[in-house]
Amino acid sequence: MKFDPLFKQHKIFHGCDYNPEQWLDSPEILEKDIEMMKQAHCNIMSVGIFSWSMLEPEEGRYNFEWLDKILDKLNENGIKVFLATPSGARPTWMSKKYPEVLRVWENRVRALHGGRHNHCSSSPVYRQKVHDIDLKLAQRYANHPAVIGWHISNEFSGSCHCELCQKNFRIWMKNKYKTLDNLNKSYWSVFWSHVYTDWSEIESPSSIGENAVHALNLDWARFNTELCMDFCKHEIDTVKSVRADLPVTTNFMEYFYDYDYFEFAKILDFVSWDSYPQWHVFKDQEQTPLYTAMNHDLMRSLKGGQPFVLMESTPSLTNWRDTSKLKKPGMHKLSSLQALAHGADNIQYFQWRKSRGASEKFHGAVVDHVGHLNTRVGKEVCELGSILEKLGEIAGSRVDAKVAVVFDTQNWWAIDDAMGPRNVGKKYLEVVQDYYKVLWKHGINVDVIDETCPLDNYKLVIAPMTYMIRGDYAKRVTEFVRNGGTYVSSFWSGIVDDNDLTFLGGFPGPLSEVLGIWDEEIECLEDDETVKVKVGAEEFDATHLCALIHPHGDTKVLGTFNSDFFKDYAAVTVNSFGNGNAYYVASRIEYSYLDKLLSKILGDCRVESPIESLPFAVTCHTRYNADTEYLFIGNYSDKSADVTLKESYDDLLSGQKLTGAVTLKSYDFRILKKKK
Amino acid sequence: MKFDPLFKQHKIFHGCDYNPEQWLDSPEILEKDIEMMKQAHCNIMSVGIFSWSMLEPEEGRYNFEWLDKILDKLNENGIKVFLATPSGARPTWMSKKYPEVLRVWENRVRALHGGRHNHCSSSPVYRQKVHDIDLKLAQRYANHPAVIGWHISNEFSGSCHCELCQKNFRIWMKNKYKTLDNLNKSYWSVFWSHVYTDWSEIESPSSIGENAVHALNLDWARFNTELCMDFCKHEIDTVKSVRADLPVTTNFMEYFYDYDYFEFAKILDFVSWDSYPQWHVFKDQEQTPLYTAMNHDLMRSLKGGQPFVLMESTPSLTNWRDTSKLKKPGMHKLSSLQALAHGADNIQYFQWRKSRGASEKFHGAVVDHVGHLNTRVGKEVCELGSILEKLGEIAGSRVDAKVAVVFDTQNWWAIDDAMGPRNVGKKYLEVVQDYYKVLWKHGINVDVIDETCPLDNYKLVIAPMTYMIRGDYAKRVTEFVRNGGTYVSSFWSGIVDDNDLTFLGGFPGPLSEVLGIWDEEIECLEDDETVKVKVGAEEFDATHLCALIHPHGDTKVLGTFNSDFFKDYAAVTVNSFGNGNAYYVASRIEYSYLDKLLSKILGDCRVESPIESLPFAVTCHTRYNADTEYLFIGNYSDKSADVTLKESYDDLLSGQKLTGAVTLKSYDFRILKKKK
Amino acid sequence: MKFDPLFKQHKIFHGCDYNPEQWLDSPEILEKDIEMMKQAHCNIMSVGIFSWSMLEPEEGRYNFEWLDKILDKLNENGIKVFLATPSGARPTWMSKKYPEVLRVWENRVRALHGGRHNHCSSSPVYRQKVHDIDLKLAQRYANHPAVIGWHISNEFSGSCHCELCQKNFRIWMKNKYKTLDNLNKSYWSVFWSHVYTDWSEIESPSSIGENAVHALNLDWARFNTELCMDFCKHEIDTVKSVRADLPVTTNFMEYFYDYDYFEFAKILDFVSWDSYPQWHVFKDQEQTPLYTAMNHDLMRSLKGGQPFVLMESTPSLTNWRDTSKLKKPGMHKLSSLQALAHGADNIQYFQWRKSRGASEKFHGAVVDHVGHLNTRVGKEVCELGSILEKLGEIAGSRVDAKVAVVFDTQNWWAIDDAMGPRNVGKKYLEVVQDYYKVLWKHGINVDVIDETCPLDNYKLVIAPMTYMIRGDYAKRVTEFVRNGGTYVSSFWSGIVDDNDLTFLGGFPGPLSEVLGIWDEEIECLEDDETVKVKVGAEEFDATHLCALIHPHGDTKVLGTFNSDFFKDYAAVTVNSFGNGNAYYVASRIEYSYLDKLLSKILGDCRVESPIESLPFAVTCHTRYNADTEYLFIGNYSDKSADVTLKESYDDLLSGQKLTGAVTLKSYDFRILKKKK
Repeated sequence: MKFDPLFKQHKIFHGCDYNPEQWLDSPEILEKDIEMMKQAHCNIMSVGIFSWSMLEPEEGRYNFEWLDKILDKLNENGIKVFLATPSGARPTWMSKKYPEVLRVWENRVRALHGGRHNHCSSSPVYRQKVHDIDLKLAQRYANHPAVIGWHISNEFSGSCHCELCQKNFRIWMKNKYKTLDNLNKSYWSVFWSHVYTDWSEIESPSSIGENAVHALNLDWARFNTELCMDFCKHEIDTVKSVRADLPVTTNFMEYFYDYDYFEFAKILDFVSWDSYPQWHVFKDQEQTPLYTAMNHDLMRSLKGGQPFVLMESTPSLTNWRDTSKLKKPGMHKLSSLQALAHGADNIQYFQWRKSRGASEKFHGAVVDHVGHLNTRVGKEVCELGSILEKLGEIAGSRVDAKVAVVFDTQNWWAIDDAMGPRNVGKKYLEVVQDYYKVLWKHGINVDVIDETCPLDNYKLVIAPMTYMIRGDYAKRVTEFVRNGGTYVSSFWSGIVDDNDLTFLGGFPGPLSEVLGIWDEEIECLEDDETVKVKVGAEEFDATHLCALIHPHGDTKVLGTFNSDFFKDYAAVTVNSFGNGNAYYVASRIEYSYLDKLLSKILGDCRVESPIESLPFAVTCHTRYNADTEYLFIGNYSDKSADVTLKESYDDLLSGQKLTGAVTLKSYDFRILKKKK
Repeated sequence: MKFDPLFKQHKIFHGCDYNPEQWLDSPEILEKDIEMMKQAHCNIMSVGIFSWSMLEPEEGRYNFEWLDKILDKLNENGIKVFLATPSGARPTWMSKKYPEVLRVWENRVRALHGGRHNHCSSSPVYRQKVHDIDLKLAQRYANHPAVIGWHISNEFSGSCHCELCQKNFRIWMKNKYKTLDNLNKSYWSVFWSHVYTDWSEIESPSSIGENAVHALNLDWARFNTELCMDFCKHEIDTVKSVRADLPVTTNFMEYFYDYDYFEFAKILDFVSWDSYPQWHVFKDQEQTPLYTAMNHDLMRSLKGGQPFVLMESTPSLTNWRDTSKLKKPGMHKLSSLQALAHGADNIQYFQWRKSRGASEKFHGAVVDHVGHLNTRVGKEVCELGSILEKLGEIAGSRVDAKVAVVFDTQNWWAIDDAMGPRNVGKKYLEVVQDYYKVLWKHGINVDVIDETCPLDNYKLVIAPMTYMIRGDYAKRVTEFVRNGGTYVSSFWSGIVDDNDLTFLGGFPGPLSEVLGIWDEEIECLEDDETVKVKVGAEEFDATHLCALIHPHGDTKVLGTFNSDFFKDYAAVTVNSFGNGNAYYVASRIEYSYLDKLLSKILGDCRVESPIESLPFAVTCHTRYNADTEYLFIGNYSDKSADVTLKESYDDLLSGQKLTGAVTLKSYDFRILKKKK
Repeated sequence: MKFDPLFKQHKIFHGCDYNPEQWLDSPEILEKDIEMMKQAHCNIMSVGIFSWSMLEPEEGRYNFEWLDKILDKLNENGIKVFLATPSGARPTWMSKKYPEVLRVWENRVRALHGGRHNHCSSSPVYRQKVHDIDLKLAQRYANHPAVIGWHISNEFSGSCHCELCQKNFRIWMKNKYKTLDNLNKSYWSVFWSHVYTDWSEIESPSSIGENAVHALNLDWARFNTELCMDFCKHEIDTVKSVRADLPVTTNFMEYFYDYDYFEFAKILDFVSWDSYPQWHVFKDQEQTPLYTAMNHDLMRSLKGGQPFVLMESTPSLTNWRDTSKLKKPGMHKLSSLQALAHGADNIQYFQWRKSRGASEKFHGAVVDHVGHLNTRVGKEVCELGSILEKLGEIAGSRVDAKVAVVFDTQNWWAIDDAMGPRNVGKKYLEVVQDYYKVLWKHGINVDVIDETCPLDNYKLVIAPMTYMIRGDYAKRVTEFVRNGGTYVSSFWSGIVDDNDLTFLGGFPGPLSEVLGIWDEEIECLEDDETVKVKVGAEEFDATHLCALIHPHGDTKVLGTFNSDFFKDYAAVTVNSFGNGNAYYVASRIEYSYLDKLLSKILGDCRVESPIESLPFAVTCHTRYNADTEYLFIGNYSDKSADVTLKESYDDLLSGQKLTGAVTLKSYDFRILKKKK
């Protein structure tokens, strides 16, 4: 199959957030910017993200001239633009004149002006002001030759508890539940006498009010996903009213918790995200690359595998962590190419040039305060730019994954909010990553999906801790296995429905049949406590939680607990169901066992890596396009490592033929290709 | 002596909180409940605790029919009822219509509706609403054959800082101090110029206002004890206006800090409490049983030794701790019988059936979400029920304690609030438990009393850290020792009077004569610091605080400090006074020394355990009735243990004669009896 | 040179805060106080600090009779007085009647009455009330023979965010920036669109509003320094309107952060401070004495070396730390004489007699609750008093320092507020103390100055982490080195200007020429991470931050990094510049290296200690007067130690001639003198 690249151009884009409004007093600096962008092989800039106060310095008075000049100059130099709507940070005059635009926190205190990304999404005034500026921008620039897409607002997040939002929440609730009786039953509100007798009694969750009704908390998070989408849609509609075919995105964030991105992505034309991994911080050198890899896979999976944009990253350090570490030589190239390996078509940074003042002045940028590119960082960015120029053919190519890992945001909310069996250290993400790690270390392509995504195209679906069974998920899992799929489940699965009401009649509820077990009780281990699991002659450590299960008649027991009062209870089972198999892992068993278990399963499913026996901290991923397969190999360790290719490849950068053993130095990478 | 059981029935009651209002839509579940209650040998249920919104779904419209049916059905099946007043959680409509019922926190912010146990106790509206529903309940059910007592509200706690409460506080202050001059002197308010010149200037302690006047903080806590009692009395008066002889209780909590329970218990007919020990959490297997044992002894002592009700406990896990651990097999029976050993006549749970939704759905219950009793937990509850059925003769029997440990809530408040000599890790409870532990490990019955309780019936009174000397306590201690009693005191005793004013002229103030020492200074050790104490040829570690004392002429020095600049200062002394002896322990000396010291004292006082040399984590306690003594032995360790009976007993469950060596498996117990 | 003592008397003053208003009901106690003051050789008392409610019990009604009696009685007994203005704690009636006097916190909540040191400094009502009482006090007592100075208010601190203060802040901003354009440029407010378009939009920093604009935060701190000074000046003007020549002070605090004391000291006649070191708490016995020594040096340097007053200290323990440790025998004398060694002329305590009630009743005092001086503490205070009586000739003598350490409060604010490269553990004070420690252990006199102080009189100036280059500091440093001075700088220097705008064109900005380096990047090490630094054949550990620098052509590299990717980068450099030398230390290198480096530099600069090779925890300092030099030697360890005198001295206390080896027992000291 042949795919179109995102922006109809066969190039990998390389660029930055560009904030020239900070330097308008220094035309010589703006001049030098363009020169250096070319030196760094930059061909795209995101412009206007925080420009509102420069575009509309007082209410209704607009000033676009400076931006005209910038866009023209970029265009003249062949640099494309994502044009931002400036709603992420409003001018000070607006907060002063219209306090309703300021957010009210859950403690019912209204914010003063400050920070960013903190408007009320319900405020009619704010929506009007955003509409006005967005429309002006669209009318002026939607057809500008430099502009290839819209960067809507910036890093949407959070929620507002003002009366306008409360009112919207009540309307949303009424639409969802129709009657208070439905609502009360779903909320089990009779417990603690919290029955609602009038819609007006509903208030958003609050640390000074209702905060222990889990279904309310879940609904509040769902409502906020939809409210934020509605706000974003309001912006999209405005800019598309001028030119409908210019694609829109908004920049997403790392393992984001405030909203359900699988919902949110539906209103975007393409997905982009801001990635700031903590390189060189952890003793375990695999931790950061695999954590980041899974997030790239998640971003790609949000829109069914379509290439995504790495909208922000840093060429050196961040400035908002406890300790801000530099990227060691080579790491910037490697980490940028990691995004490519997982499906990105753009590599972009925050920001082009470091600000002189305010809170982000020490955040890494391409151009440092010294003002030139003859720096360690500047030189590595230039090198990467010249590499990316050679990778145009990869643009638009896809990742083919036969394995999916389920990581579901709404389930995450529900797990974290539940009281018991653990209230500290729920670790949903960590447990999912236990399984993802095996796949990463084996160099297997993986999609990271949620419970609403189709399962049919996978051979193997791994879904630990599916506490909340949403919609028809259990039914689709059952069909998937019946039709020959392999499914891996774990402890703390099949406990509640969409409304956080427990299933009656035995856990894992609607997954009981396909998994072939009854989960009677769940034991929580102390943080320093382990139990033993016996598999054949071997013994493994297990921690965290232990489901005390009873296999159904035909279910096969692969391992048993070997300590505590539940010694000899089944710890790992597999149920042959229809043409497939459904595994259940009753505790958090150590990595070496998961590796054995999944290796066996991958073999049974005939899912293979292009490279066998990858060394420590070395992994590989593939993309394909028409008749070509691209193989990305990266070494994330601080030591050299050898890999053995199964087949013969062309090195895309050197043009060399490669076969057999290849040595990668620390932080080195290879981009290889072969005919499919 | 022959005692009447609490409810005139010679049975140990076994039951639960029962919340059928959650299941009114499922009559088949209510039907099955009754069947299973009988299967579990349950004969009592606490009903109606959170039922207000079902009983009064809108203001003034009552609905009792569902409750009629439940009480009738329980009665038909021989199950008795504690009927709750529903004031612990109010309907949502009430908070909406009458915001004054919502509590105001110390930061002067009024709560939104949510949670429970958080009404304003001063609110006239709330008192009226509570009166109305309580009266309706009493009129309808006080003479119902199932009902044997009132469960007033639920887990009273906290305080409200609204203007109504402030006004009540000022009235209370005026009653107590009569003149502002008296108040100012007691508060030493001239320090920092905080002199009150008008009663209206008094405000409750607040993190945003006055928070360092200890006497004010103490008065606020005392006022809140009285205000809550007044609220509770208002409820009691209402229900007793219909039927005066139906006994009332409210369920107390673990080592409760908000109110002074020794005061509170005075208005109740019997004491009940909610006990949720952390079984299997601590490495030291003695920690949880002895911590719980002391709390049982405290609850029994609140009303002079009268049997109490274990109103709530869990048959498996809780859901509100960091980690919720299951009770291992046997522990449920053992922990329930522990309550019995210390004087309980009822064993009850929260709750009968797990809720499907809301915040406590994963709190252990008799019936799990699976819906039957064929579970590990269900089966152990049934077993326990059948054991309790055989123990009817124990109901009403008493505990005879010759030793009292003083643990005084008002003193606890004062110690914690004092600034210096330690501000972190005051550890009053821990230090008291150091001494209690010796008694528990020796199998000695103990009363846990406060400074207001009579001392005359004891041979030995142990009172560590009596920082605050309340009322005539010092005088009564002096009389007690003069008359032959033995008293054990410690560092940080005799420092302030009821108003937190220090004694002048030398510590321990009014205890100086009986203890025979002058406490010149107090040294605080760092948390990781120890000093040495020398007793004869032996040396022990001491930590926490060291009183630097000077014994009076006749006072005997039993041990001395052996390090730091106060080497050779007296560390343990005894003063022969009148016919008795008064000991002073100047630091927190390690357990092995306390064991030696108290063993010697117990011998001198001729206080003996029914079993000598109890193994690790095994203890025993006795109750008696008319001419029979009941001996409870429990093994709280995960290993088997042997004990040697001094005399011959009948095993109450097996009917066997037992003498000499008895082996108890892990978590096993024995209930033995013999003629006195 | 011959210096006048502070109060024209050739005596070292010894005394306390004296709060007789707490004991007016007990005339016998007041009588005994005077007797005991003489017993303790006390000759000064600070009176009236918290007396407002006793002086003005209701608005406009004054009561001075009790104070008349106290001052007369003190005078009759030869005891001098610092008379306090009582503005540190206002009467309760005032807060009730005029809520505007109460402070508003940064979260915009107004405090309730409580605590102290928490008035609004802008409030016209408060200023009027303070003026009234101050004027009355001055009129009545300014010429009282006992009174030798004013103790203005008490421990000024904090800030208020009320509308009155906001208004003052806006006026201050207008005065500073003249135009909004200047302000916006300085604040780099275009970042995040925070451009101010009207002065009324400016609000003080707030956790619920603007909190990430560093220049705003800095201005707020500067404004509060000036506002507090203005308030203090208002009090000074009032009391000086009656008698201009009576000297004023206010008591400063330890390494104070809220205000810039170098500014504040300008309006005072003499500096006094409250010193509460944590003796005996740290394993490293040098930590507390050197930490305290540097603070004494800072206090002395605030007014150019003029003697200062130790206004508060404790003779035993404090009561506001986690753990309050007693001073071990000897430590009280030693720690008091430490203040003297660094330039104090008074040794005073908080407080004379322990209060009976309220929050500070367990704070150490001369007279304990027992009521006499026959205590361990009382006796040591008396001994010290008798020693101080013999030291009159030292009064007024000066410290001659040839070395200055720069520790700049505004730079401290800026470092702590900056985001990146570290956000946790900035450690400015700790890094400065690394260098101070070498000097302390060598027995070298040091001034502790800020960037505004003259440098000309020093041979060596050590200025680590001068992140912010204030005013003409860089120019003066350059001149200082050019003229032959030696300057030591470190990593994270020369980054921003007064407005927290980074220097462009390469760090360390205006220090680049004199230091002879370019600082390209800064790497932050994890807390448990070290890198190696190689100097000749030796290797040292470095932690915290590493500047990756490039020496200019002539700059000499003394050491290089020896690990990580910046192996072989210069780690220590020296630039010969003009007649002087400028060192740069690129990381936090371990003590043993700093000792080597500074020992060499001290030798090169010909700065010598009176004693060579001081043992562990033993140090010495000198003062001089006319033709005499006083040598103070103190042993802060718990072991005996020997020092060897280079010359012959007279022991000021024993009168003995001392030469060669001298042994100091644990916590012992010597005061020696010799002709210059």
